[in-house]
Amino acid sequence: MVRVFLDTHRALMANPMRLRLRSFASSASALNWEGGVSMVQGASRGIGLEFVKHLLEKNEKGHVIATCRNPNGATGLLELKNQFAERLNILPLDLTVESTIEESAKSVTERYGSLNLLINASGILSIPNVLQPETTLSKLYKSSLMLAYEVNAVGPILVIKHMWPLLKAGGGFGTERDVAVVANLSARVGSIGDNRLGGWHSYRSSKAALNQLTKTISVEFARKKDPIACILLHPGTVDTDLSRPFQRNVRADKLFTKEFSVQKLLNIINNTKHQDNGKFFAWDGQEIPW
Amino acid sequence: MVRVFLDTHRALMANPMRLRLRSFASSASALNWEGGVSMVQGASRGIGLEFVKHLLEKNEKGHVIATCRNPNGATGLLELKNQFAERLNILPLDLTVESTIEESAKSVTERYGSLNLLINASGILSIPNVLQPETTLSKLYKSSLMLAYEVNAVGPILVIKHMWPLLKAGGGFGTERDVAVVANLSARVGSIGDNRLGGWHSYRSSKAALNQLTKTISVEFARKKDPIACILLHPGTVDTDLSRPFQRNVRADKLFTKEFSVQKLLNIINNTKHQDNGKFFAWDGQEIPW
Repeated sequence: MVRVFLDTHRALMANPMRLRLRSFASSASALNWEGGVSMVQGASRGIGLEFVKHLLEKNEKGHVIATCRNPNGATGLLELKNQFAERLNILPLDLTVESTIEESAKSVTERYGSLNLLINASGILSIPNVLQPETTLSKLYKSSLMLAYEVNAVGPILVIKHMWPLLKAGGGFGTERDVAVVANLSARVGSIGDNRLGGWHSYRSSKAALNQLTKTISVEFARKKDPIACILLHPGTVDTDLSRPFQRNVRADKLFTKEFSVQKLLNIINNTKHQDNGKFFAWDGQEIPW
Repeated sequence: MVRVFLDTHRALMANPMRLRLRSFASSASALNWEGGVSMVQGASRGIGLEFVKHLLEKNEKGHVIATCRNPNGATGLLELKNQFAERLNILPLDLTVESTIEESAKSVTERYGSLNLLINASGILSIPNVLQPETTLSKLYKSSLMLAYEVNAVGPILVIKHMWPLLKAGGGFGTERDVAVVANLSARVGSIGDNRLGGWHSYRSSKAALNQLTKTISVEFARKKDPIACILLHPGTVDTDLSRPFQRNVRADKLFTKEFSVQKLLNIINNTKHQDNGKFFAWDGQEIPW
């Protein structure tokens, strides 16, 4: 509270207008959000939608902000909205358009003033006629590499950039954790050390980059003593649209339902502590090499 | 030779025109290039130019192809051309324009028919008013992330894609090695496991991606039993234009001359064996964690 006071005081000295904004954010502050405020980015389907569902069902008080490119077409989210009108807030956000990320941050600031959890769940692996997971170097295209990087690595980090003040304000308030958590969905195939099969150049490269960016920002969060832990998660091979074209070679007991995977990942998220900041976990809690 | 014969035979059956091309490539084949044929991509200055110089001076018979965006402005290369007219071939290549990479490959195919060494020496860290190494997440810009990725990760891999047939043809012929070597200049700050300082998001991310892409293609080279070993090299902090703005905090004995670093790296390259394929070495031969 002392720090809030000092900040407010400084803001007043510098610019009386800013005080009004800060006071507003403060009045809707983290302390008021019992159960916490969570954001799931990439929530229209697959693992993202499942996270939203679990967060609303398992935590009776928590608020959830679900973002996706086109809320009007997100039938799964709209169904949940019917059921959890008060606690679910759907916002438009296109990872490739930074202004939409800023708009979301502004909207969350006005309504909640804080965030306790940010899950970056979006990801692309294949898009018919646009992006195909590569089987050989000779079929590597620059456009695929650039697109996968933009969506899988750059986008999530820009979301964190704009939600950072909200996460700092939120920390672990209203939750059973000491810290706010940023969970980026990565993948074991993003591991360089674990890369024994090759192929999927664009996807692998974008996830390795996401891992490096996440590690890089985790160092800054630690140095600044922000109440935030940033982690990377491998969900396993989950039965979603993303994995569907590639499930042929997956053993039945290695193909998880969304429910199973998200339950495991939320278990990791809920138990995340300060010292987990910057780590890369598989669904079963094992650390994955870089 | 049996394999060459069979390939030629098959080509003749399929298309008599192709035989002429193959015969031409064969007549200018790897076996004729005692001392080997090396390509240095990004050779106009800094470490790249130093590699060209060493390769020409230390290996009295080897041929060197030096590529850069603008050969007419590459004064260092033009000086070497005066001295080593026969053994130095300067070609225009802009990493960000794939057609220029293809043109270079075509030109090398016509003149040499093979490659024994490819050094990707280009790299960007800062460009005034365009790209600035980041000191905080709040100053991360999408344009910087995308540009660093395009130049530091995508470009070198596209060069390998187009030189791959030449490297397969070359292998270790004419050199003292068993294999052709692809050496990608990476950097210790690209290591995720070794990232303790944070910052430099764009650069770190692009180098981690380069590491992952290099590892990925090394797996394919191994599976196909290509006579190529692909390695990553950390040159240390070298006194070049790239590092100049950041030398303030570098201890004098940790700031290497180009001569020293390139001598060390060539030592690693010359001793590279099949089993080094896919590894990441520092200038002193130590492996660096991913």
